Amino acid sequence: MNVNAATPSPPHETFHDPQSALSEWMAAGRALVEAELDRRLPPATEKPAILHEAMRYATLNGGKRLRAILALAVCQALGKDPRRALLPGIALEAFHAYTLVHDDLPCMDDDDLRRGKPSTHIRYGEANALLAGDALLTLACQWMAESVTPLPHPPAALVLELTRAGGSTGVIGGQIEDLAAEALPPEEERLLYIHSEKTARLIACACRCGAIAAGACPATVDTFGDYGHHLGLAFQILDDILDATQVTAILGKPAGSDAENHKLTTVSLWGLEKSRSEARRHTDLALAALEKTRADTHRLAPLTAHLLNRDS
Amino acid sequence: MNVNAATPSPPHETFHDPQSALSEWMAAGRALVEAELDRRLPPATEKPAILHEAMRYATLNGGKRLRAILALAVCQALGKDPRRALLPGIALEAFHAYTLVHDDLPCMDDDDLRRGKPSTHIRYGEANALLAGDALLTLACQWMAESVTPLPHPPAALVLELTRAGGSTGVIGGQIEDLAAEALPPEEERLLYIHSEKTARLIACACRCGAIAAGACPATVDTFGDYGHHLGLAFQILDDILDATQVTAILGKPAGSDAENHKLTTVSLWGLEKSRSEARRHTDLALAALEKTRADTHRLAPLTAHLLNRDS
Repeated sequence: MNVNAATPSPPHETFHDPQSALSEWMAAGRALVEAELDRRLPPATEKPAILHEAMRYATLNGGKRLRAILALAVCQALGKDPRRALLPGIALEAFHAYTLVHDDLPCMDDDDLRRGKPSTHIRYGEANALLAGDALLTLACQWMAESVTPLPHPPAALVLELTRAGGSTGVIGGQIEDLAAEALPPEEERLLYIHSEKTARLIACACRCGAIAAGACPATVDTFGDYGHHLGLAFQILDDILDATQVTAILGKPAGSDAENHKLTTVSLWGLEKSRSEARRHTDLALAALEKTRADTHRLAPLTAHLLNRDS
Repeated sequence: MNVNAATPSPPHETFHDPQSALSEWMAAGRALVEAELDRRLPPATEKPAILHEAMRYATLNGGKRLRAILALAVCQALGKDPRRALLPGIALEAFHAYTLVHDDLPCMDDDDLRRGKPSTHIRYGEANALLAGDALLTLACQWMAESVTPLPHPPAALVLELTRAGGSTGVIGGQIEDLAAEALPPEEERLLYIHSEKTARLIACACRCGAIAAGACPATVDTFGDYGHHLGLAFQILDDILDATQVTAILGKPAGSDAENHKLTTVSLWGLEKSRSEARRHTDLALAALEKTRADTHRLAPLTAHLLNRDS
């Protein structure tokens, strides 16, 4: 299936194996996102070259593109051309890349590897990495401001979605609590705050932005936000489980690094069994929210299931 | 004079000494900016408290508020209530504060003092300072998105002004060249790039935002941008001169730190005499641009002269 098609459900799909149709759709969406990022990121030949090279290195690194793909999928589920959500989608990816670059810095999580490659500060030095992160955050806000925001939303709605989700009471708040938690006794309330703000907030934001790009009413935007919130929580719990159970080669980052860094995780707090049941519970809540949107969920429902059955 | 007044030139002012009228106006503008920053920055009592405390520490620190005051003054010079430019003005101040916090970090300029007080990372630690900077940048974009942007400008014009001026080919580009210059032979072209992008770009942006907030036509916005560009260059040259000639107690930061850090400055490249004549030349170009706007310059012209006669 062509992710560019405005019609959400072409008839030939019913003859396809649903799993392989989903994989094809995700691959097409990912290719679209990669191409747009490559096209819109400043070229490494443009001054200041080292900064632009670092920005591209940090962003074009084989990520899953979960946030952009969710924005495209939500827009399409609402019957609109998913390309409406492409610019907000790559803004979310640039924003996500900035958080990873800054999180990996020595004064933060001090991680040398990211997706199997040297972290940006290992490759380009700390100062360049710090500034590349700043520039990606700035560019993410610029791309949101350059996106078309259809009625009934105010013109700057997408910038506001990103900056509110990404600010001190959102993603950054989650990261600061995550760092603080290393020195504190494990506590469920803190863990839930960290997972909600550090991970689920931006995933919920991606779903909201997809709905806004489709011109959905505010109530529908909120319901897609609920969907993204529970999907994000399930996704983070699964991440914790994978860190505790997988090996470095599959993960593309040092396995067991959470335990080594004394990170507060669902596994360290709840153990594996409760972590798995919580992941299932949030998956069910995500699917229930999806049902409530009354959108065409033939793509989002299996995508949700697929994301929560991943092994890396 | 009341900075809140919509009329740019109340009659009683003609009986005032112009210098003291300017000082009063600047003090009123600064008080307005401080109060709005204090009101809009997240309270230190709100979670995550340490982050909000660091954001407030980095921002509410007795700065000159040059960028906000220029935005207010330009808006007023165009015959509009300067409070139209207040939210964009504090966004510029939050943005400026973020650049200072990140510039002071050990991997960048490694400065322990800022305006006579410990830098944010000395006071709150590196991780909190890094994240406070990120949060201030995010908040600056949010405030621009929340500002009213009158016609003929597109609704997200203010966000675009800030993100383009503040991005990889603007302020961040200037900072990266500034860091690189420490290891390279002094070169005029590089110095001019650094001064244009690292300092003058945001000052020009402040003037452009003031004009946009007033609803000026694009040509007038550009002319105010030229004014700000030359004012910013003169301002930075003066900064270099002061660093080389003043003592720490007056500057509020370690005097002579440029020479100690092998910074490329106008003084190191040109010496004091040529630096002074270049500052004068850019001041004249700024005043010529101001003349061209045909706005009411009775406030901006002496403000320009005042800024370029400062001693700290």
